[in-house]
Amino acid sequence: MTGKEDISFFFNPKSIAIIGASPTPGKVGYNVLNNITDSGYSGRVYPINPKADTLKEIGGYKAFKNVLEVSESIDIAIFVIPGKIVLSVAEECGQKKIKGLIVITAGFKEIGVEGVKRENELIQIAQKYNMRIIGPNCLGFIGLNYNGSFASDTPKKGNIAMISQSGAFLTAFMDYSMEQPYGFSCNISLGNKADMDSVDFIEYLVDDPDTKVILCYLESIENGRKFLEVVSKATRKKPIIILKSGVSEAGARAASSHTGALVGSDIAYELAFEKCGVLRAQSIEDLFDYGEIFLCQPIPHENAFAIITNAGGPGIVATDHFEREKIKFARFSEPILHLLREKLPPEAAIFNPVDLIGDAPPDRYRFAIETIFGLKRGKYDIIINDDDITTHGALILMSPQAQTHPDDVASLILELSSSYLADKPIVCAFLGEKSVKKARQFLKQNGVPCYSFPERAARSLKALINRSEYLNSKSLKGIELPKFDVNKERVKEIINNARDDGRTVLLSHETSAIFECYGIKSPKSRLAKTPRKAMEIQRELGKSVMKIVSPQIIHKTDVGGLILNIEKQEQAFEAYIQIVDNSKRFGPQNVKIYGVEVQEMIDFNQEKKINELIIGMSRDAQFGPLIMIGSGGIYANFLKDVAFALSYKFTREDAMEMLQKTKIFSLLQGVRGESPSDIEAILDVLLKLSQLVNEFPEIMELDINPLLSFTKSYSAVDIKITISRE
Amino acid sequence: MTGKEDISFFFNPKSIAIIGASPTPGKVGYNVLNNITDSGYSGRVYPINPKADTLKEIGGYKAFKNVLEVSESIDIAIFVIPGKIVLSVAEECGQKKIKGLIVITAGFKEIGVEGVKRENELIQIAQKYNMRIIGPNCLGFIGLNYNGSFASDTPKKGNIAMISQSGAFLTAFMDYSMEQPYGFSCNISLGNKADMDSVDFIEYLVDDPDTKVILCYLESIENGRKFLEVVSKATRKKPIIILKSGVSEAGARAASSHTGALVGSDIAYELAFEKCGVLRAQSIEDLFDYGEIFLCQPIPHENAFAIITNAGGPGIVATDHFEREKIKFARFSEPILHLLREKLPPEAAIFNPVDLIGDAPPDRYRFAIETIFGLKRGKYDIIINDDDITTHGALILMSPQAQTHPDDVASLILELSSSYLADKPIVCAFLGEKSVKKARQFLKQNGVPCYSFPERAARSLKALINRSEYLNSKSLKGIELPKFDVNKERVKEIINNARDDGRTVLLSHETSAIFECYGIKSPKSRLAKTPRKAMEIQRELGKSVMKIVSPQIIHKTDVGGLILNIEKQEQAFEAYIQIVDNSKRFGPQNVKIYGVEVQEMIDFNQEKKINELIIGMSRDAQFGPLIMIGSGGIYANFLKDVAFALSYKFTREDAMEMLQKTKIFSLLQGVRGESPSDIEAILDVLLKLSQLVNEFPEIMELDINPLLSFTKSYSAVDIKITISRE
Repeated sequence: MTGKEDISFFFNPKSIAIIGASPTPGKVGYNVLNNITDSGYSGRVYPINPKADTLKEIGGYKAFKNVLEVSESIDIAIFVIPGKIVLSVAEECGQKKIKGLIVITAGFKEIGVEGVKRENELIQIAQKYNMRIIGPNCLGFIGLNYNGSFASDTPKKGNIAMISQSGAFLTAFMDYSMEQPYGFSCNISLGNKADMDSVDFIEYLVDDPDTKVILCYLESIENGRKFLEVVSKATRKKPIIILKSGVSEAGARAASSHTGALVGSDIAYELAFEKCGVLRAQSIEDLFDYGEIFLCQPIPHENAFAIITNAGGPGIVATDHFEREKIKFARFSEPILHLLREKLPPEAAIFNPVDLIGDAPPDRYRFAIETIFGLKRGKYDIIINDDDITTHGALILMSPQAQTHPDDVASLILELSSSYLADKPIVCAFLGEKSVKKARQFLKQNGVPCYSFPERAARSLKALINRSEYLNSKSLKGIELPKFDVNKERVKEIINNARDDGRTVLLSHETSAIFECYGIKSPKSRLAKTPRKAMEIQRELGKSVMKIVSPQIIHKTDVGGLILNIEKQEQAFEAYIQIVDNSKRFGPQNVKIYGVEVQEMIDFNQEKKINELIIGMSRDAQFGPLIMIGSGGIYANFLKDVAFALSYKFTREDAMEMLQKTKIFSLLQGVRGESPSDIEAILDVLLKLSQLVNEFPEIMELDINPLLSFTKSYSAVDIKITISRE
Repeated sequence: MTGKEDISFFFNPKSIAIIGASPTPGKVGYNVLNNITDSGYSGRVYPINPKADTLKEIGGYKAFKNVLEVSESIDIAIFVIPGKIVLSVAEECGQKKIKGLIVITAGFKEIGVEGVKRENELIQIAQKYNMRIIGPNCLGFIGLNYNGSFASDTPKKGNIAMISQSGAFLTAFMDYSMEQPYGFSCNISLGNKADMDSVDFIEYLVDDPDTKVILCYLESIENGRKFLEVVSKATRKKPIIILKSGVSEAGARAASSHTGALVGSDIAYELAFEKCGVLRAQSIEDLFDYGEIFLCQPIPHENAFAIITNAGGPGIVATDHFEREKIKFARFSEPILHLLREKLPPEAAIFNPVDLIGDAPPDRYRFAIETIFGLKRGKYDIIINDDDITTHGALILMSPQAQTHPDDVASLILELSSSYLADKPIVCAFLGEKSVKKARQFLKQNGVPCYSFPERAARSLKALINRSEYLNSKSLKGIELPKFDVNKERVKEIINNARDDGRTVLLSHETSAIFECYGIKSPKSRLAKTPRKAMEIQRELGKSVMKIVSPQIIHKTDVGGLILNIEKQEQAFEAYIQIVDNSKRFGPQNVKIYGVEVQEMIDFNQEKKINELIIGMSRDAQFGPLIMIGSGGIYANFLKDVAFALSYKFTREDAMEMLQKTKIFSLLQGVRGESPSDIEAILDVLLKLSQLVNEFPEIMELDINPLLSFTKSYSAVDIKITISRE
């Protein structure tokens, strides 16, 4: 059920059956039918009720015992019947060729084993008849044409599409919005997401002319790959803002007990949202503030803003919030500074933030706004060129003082913003309540977000800036991914051998071989099963390091299972015995020992710069391989200097970006006169690794620690690969 | 003007002179007099105006030409006259023995050089006559008995004391508060703080019976030491919440251009607030939310809270915010879980967060609250002991659903909270707007903070928890500071010698000597001025390291000014020549070279654990010495693994706490089977260092990098000390 399908019947159904429609006020089946009528639905309505013969009609519509009795075609059916009869009715709906089911009924996955079974059967019926399902266990669906939910109100119409995994949240959102200036193109309650999920709707809504912004409340995303594919394209067209809950460990627990959904680790969600340009709301307030500003204010071309204030203190607080949100101050050009200096009172601050001081009348606000945006250039005998206009948006502050006229200032801000600032966002913070409430409401109602305090204003501006930067970034659509020549057959063979052997952790000589197949350099390595064999191998490899080989021993040094600097054959003999002995004494009980690995010891010149890196991969249940790089060595777990990326469409730029997020990056660049490490080679390793784990989903986990990085080249010294059992 | 003085005359003046009182509406002198009358001031009022003879009376009071004409005594005078005549009038006020001046007049420090001079003269006059000054350049003072400001409104009376360094902010705050449930015991505008600052008022207000919470908006603190002394005691009695702006670099710039105040680095403010139990507001919203909750809700005994919700989604979001704020979930005891399991519907979630599910009527809320707090223990046939009650407060969520009765739920929450939960804070988040607005307002008006979304609720709860933890911590008053036996005379001598020599950077053998005086171990070190001398010293010290000694060369390795492992005399000879040569070639032009230091090389067993630390001290302009510890070595600047503490009342616990904030702490503890470093010895170094820099304010900066830490003992290998010129 993936791929773009027509689901417009949910949005514009020609006819709706309400299965379980009831004439009794207070019943859900009554509320739904009532909502459909009240919301002005103009299509055909069929109340379905087993007592149809007695009732004759429900809510003014002729009632039917079942959908098969209806002679005309039916587009969608809304289920408000007990869980146990949902399956048989769904079967009838299929026979009736109904296109979509909105299953409000609960009693599915969320109630445990029995419910999971029922939900799976429902999915099978839907697949058989090619029906789509919203829910089950949801509030319903509200579009521009009808309210097919049991919500107590029908929200205002407008251009925000709201998708929620929680019905209660949707109700609260709608209730909240009743007193906000915006309305909705649709309110969708996902319920258990047996079939239709957020991605299906996003895919549809991105081409829906009534939708300008998409807001989602999500607790989980099941098909991460589909999400990445669809949403990375959708965000190019419309802003998508997601409040993803279950961020914390405890939250994730609560989420999984709530919806039975598999909640992925938050880092993967964070990376996925970043990768495909989703703006993440950190709170419910963010979700609404972002929705509002995208609806009414333009995306700025650059991160260069002004603060205009009539009081110093609020200006400083706003400045703090600008820095916190990394909003940059526009640097005013000389002609603009000149004008400000000339026309503002001497006590005013003309550098950004502009302080018009406490006695600022509306005209002073007007002058400042016109000047920094270069609106009335002809008015003054000073030449202002296009290049002199460096401000791309503004936060306008007002605190109520003796000379302040909040209503007049609000009017002129609206006038200037709507007439002249088509691509420069304006937000306001009018501090206080009693004297500014009216002005604030006026601005808000007319599309200029106005807050009580500067903090939210700064956050909203930042959301616009983030989107601007995203739209200026390269689309994932056109990117070319590097593809290395590799030996996949040999890798497959090694993996199969290990599986035949009943192992999921590969041995060191196997990991080296796999890396060789993908062109990643690692030291030569052989497995010795006797002290004598170790001697022979040492003779071949020269200076060596010897390590215990046991699937049960992860940290070899912890059990004395690693000896360095084996320069002579006799040492190799003794080392073998000692390592096996140590591992038996300090390792787990009845440890399984495959032998001892003799590995060529990197012969690097002591003068050369060496850095120890850790590189790893683990698989996220939703979003697939997650690549990690950071400071390596035996203290890697303590330094916690690591960065992550999804390996989805993982480019050289992505690799560089993640590397730059680590602290060790500055050391790799070469500090205090040292030569830099071979950073390009490290990027190659990351890209090759990404290709490897994408081509072999059998690889569950992979760790290189350390990867030694030199001024030229590198060596992946210690590699661990875990494969799936089958 | 430090020390606790009686400033009650500002709060309860028996008589007030308004200097510059005017009969003309719109003038500041009119507004102030009008505010005094309107606010119901019952003392004597003297309008002062040069045209008193003509006017006879102003605002119904007999007018005087100057204060000396008034025959009765005057407690305070409010100045609303032009800046240029302030000084002469102040002189008259002094002669009249007026106790306090509230100087609203601007034109002082904030306007530059001329204003600074005027302000200093004003301070001198005040000192001469023992008068206290609020301002200049302020909004005025509003107490319970009078409004001595030119604000357009008199705020509601209540128990919050508000102190603001910005007049505009104060106006905005008061305007905002008009629609809030709380009122003020005083609103103080500090202005330029020529005399009275926030600390003076905090010292007074802490014993003011009308004040329960102190809120401050500050842009700077001038006397950091006084702040620490006074506020650390005050916070033991009352919560003090400070919004300190100018947090960011840009913000700090804006602050200094605004008030002319010297704004300290934010890290020192952060540490100072933490040290003396000030709760820091991160935004204006925080400031008010914290003020509100401290006014109406109790401080919890423990960080163990419950979430009660009627919907899963909001419960998950609230859980996320709990984790973000580090609020801990109470773990319900078996009898309580038993009751919840028995009486709640099977679909309800009985583990914390408790989900009462969507159809929860008010009674279900009541049952859940009563049960988790053990309020109706006798009601059920199950024994609940005191130990079984593990919940110390709750966040109660409601989202409007079909069966929800917000008003009834609000009533019962208020009833239970005010009757039974004297030491268990309750906050609410009623999601939505239209259906819950009334209930929310009802709770808020009656002392149960109720927000639209869970985020602010969690932040407010966290403020209470922070205070609980602070009150449970040891008071600074009683702490015993370690005092080491040291040789101060010798240190003084070394510093004086260096000064005589015209140096501010001490030489290595001098720093070693100072450390010896304070019992901090560092390698033996001698200064060689010739290659031959270097040979001699090497013979004496054995294996040595040799380093260039030049005040201009900070990073010795960068110029090849350091050679390790000098084992033979001839090597010492050659090394001397090479080091001097390198330093001349790679150091700054015309580098001044004192010679080469020959330093004993630490002879540690390679098997022993060694960690490199950096320890440092710099002086904050406001709060004095700031101590730092972290990961050291040549990469210290790149690792940025450091923690700070003020050396004010710096205890062993403080030292341990700061060390624990670093990542290297886990390495010091010994990881993966290694022996731990000598952590106690490191703490000794920090304490000795703190004593040193407190006893020698001449030491401006101090750096040890690295301090090598061993399993037993340590060695401060490379020490840098900078002293002030005089």
